[in-house]
Amino acid sequence: MRLPFRSFRIFRSLLSQRPTTNPQRRRGLSSAAMRLVQFHRHGGGIRVGVEQGEGLGVVDLKAYDPTMPSTMRELLELGDKGLECAQRALSSSQCVVERSDIQLLSPVLAPEKVVCVGLNYRDHCLEQNAPIPKEPIIFSKFPSAITGPYDDIHLPSESQEVDWEVELAFVIGRRGKHIKEEDALSYVAGFTVANDITARDWQMRNGKQWLLGKTFDSFCPLGPALVTTDAVADPHNLGIRCLVNGDTVQNSNTDQMIFKTEVLVAWVSKFVTLTPGDVFLTGTPPGVGVFKKPPIFLKKGDVVECQIDQIGSIINKMV
Amino acid sequence: MRLPFRSFRIFRSLLSQRPTTNPQRRRGLSSAAMRLVQFHRHGGGIRVGVEQGEGLGVVDLKAYDPTMPSTMRELLELGDKGLECAQRALSSSQCVVERSDIQLLSPVLAPEKVVCVGLNYRDHCLEQNAPIPKEPIIFSKFPSAITGPYDDIHLPSESQEVDWEVELAFVIGRRGKHIKEEDALSYVAGFTVANDITARDWQMRNGKQWLLGKTFDSFCPLGPALVTTDAVADPHNLGIRCLVNGDTVQNSNTDQMIFKTEVLVAWVSKFVTLTPGDVFLTGTPPGVGVFKKPPIFLKKGDVVECQIDQIGSIINKMV
Repeated sequence: MRLPFRSFRIFRSLLSQRPTTNPQRRRGLSSAAMRLVQFHRHGGGIRVGVEQGEGLGVVDLKAYDPTMPSTMRELLELGDKGLECAQRALSSSQCVVERSDIQLLSPVLAPEKVVCVGLNYRDHCLEQNAPIPKEPIIFSKFPSAITGPYDDIHLPSESQEVDWEVELAFVIGRRGKHIKEEDALSYVAGFTVANDITARDWQMRNGKQWLLGKTFDSFCPLGPALVTTDAVADPHNLGIRCLVNGDTVQNSNTDQMIFKTEVLVAWVSKFVTLTPGDVFLTGTPPGVGVFKKPPIFLKKGDVVECQIDQIGSIINKMV
Repeated sequence: MRLPFRSFRIFRSLLSQRPTTNPQRRRGLSSAAMRLVQFHRHGGGIRVGVEQGEGLGVVDLKAYDPTMPSTMRELLELGDKGLECAQRALSSSQCVVERSDIQLLSPVLAPEKVVCVGLNYRDHCLEQNAPIPKEPIIFSKFPSAITGPYDDIHLPSESQEVDWEVELAFVIGRRGKHIKEEDALSYVAGFTVANDITARDWQMRNGKQWLLGKTFDSFCPLGPALVTTDAVADPHNLGIRCLVNGDTVQNSNTDQMIFKTEVLVAWVSKFVTLTPGDVFLTGTPPGVGVFKKPPIFLKKGDVVECQIDQIGSIINKMV
């Protein structure tokens, strides 16, 4: 089952309300404010597109310019050249495909890394009486966990405790190592919404290595769009919510993040070279099922919606 | 600095001593006994090749058949068709390049997953008074940690406790989920040698998530060849050793593995879909530096050699 349309009525395009970004305040990889997506038509391959506004028609980048690549990761690897072409394609209003003719995919597929951050919201630490971490706590999912913004999440028979975690995600746009905090945003292509689905019973098994409980197939819905850095006024002051079957279970603000985007980029790049397409999940606010009294876990048929202001909403059904 | 030649005098080609595999005892992905490599010539791109014997000339697969892919992951994705072509190329003795003209790369680059197993040798558990695990303990490295069989390992300034861990690695050759133990070997393309380099000071920091201490750039030397499953008589009865500056520091046998290849494939595929190119590191025997009395860690200029009988040897310098 797919639920692509509900949220489009709830959220309006913010891009059309936003003035063109002034080059002087360029912060991200590109000064262009865009909502980049990946999609396919029935029977077709992956394409990169640019939304004309949240939930509106999508400009097919490769139809506009056949020299452009078919995947977001390849587009990001082109750097400014690719993003400038995407901006021209958007401005042209040509090669627009209707939403009803396409299926949105995760804005990134097959990244080299899915980097996750644990215990990164002050209010989430308070919820579980955990001390505020002095350093980011980094773990990972395998890229095979990624699924689309409206795709089903598969409940594995191996777990009885599958939980939600709405998270602000960002995507790396430029290769780098030992990146300084003051330069970090220029390595970020943009932001998107993630659900860090977690099997709690496995998170604390497996020698207390969280990986297995976090990385079942389909445990990382992402999307709907990669919203470029300059399309987001302040990524660390955004309402962030999770709804299960329409009931709000998480409701916070990204201003509660302990380690913000710049710090996370600098920290992780001390260890590893970051590469275009790498996805970061920046941690979840309070309200996860395991800390409800009594605990609540996801069951077949539940619909989970993760919303972040200015970024968008992903809606996934548990099957 | 590169040290490609020393081990070739030590190990003789086993393939030439091995009778042609009987199709009835086909266990692996292919019944062909081959040593597959990735290499490049000066200034050239990545190529897949087949060794004429360990340390001998390499048949350039794409030169033999231009329809063949340039990377191991793509070759494995072709399944039997690719491996049969590699076998014909080897038999032809055509398109052979000399070792002195090429640099060997890791036999797999950019896999979707690097799956690692902790505490998987009985004698390594005894060494640290750790109980024998009842289930495999799974963690991961990012693919960016992979480096070639004779490449340098970069000592990060962030760690003072960089340690060695020789490990038998295997590579997935066929896509699968919920794989049964009795079918598991048919999903394995072959075996290779890994060094699971570990920053001990970071392994137990980071909320006790091992990832960061395991995944610094260059912390996963792999190679020299992907030795197909049917070229190894019994992967769970192989001498396995690590030498630091010529001194033997680890010396055991893969018969000490608690969870063997078949069990690991079945276990991990309960959680995630396995994909051609996925690399498994199966755990290390005793003798790591951190448990020496007093502890010993790697320093600039040290040369680490990891040897596994029938598979080969990788030699890396710390810089």
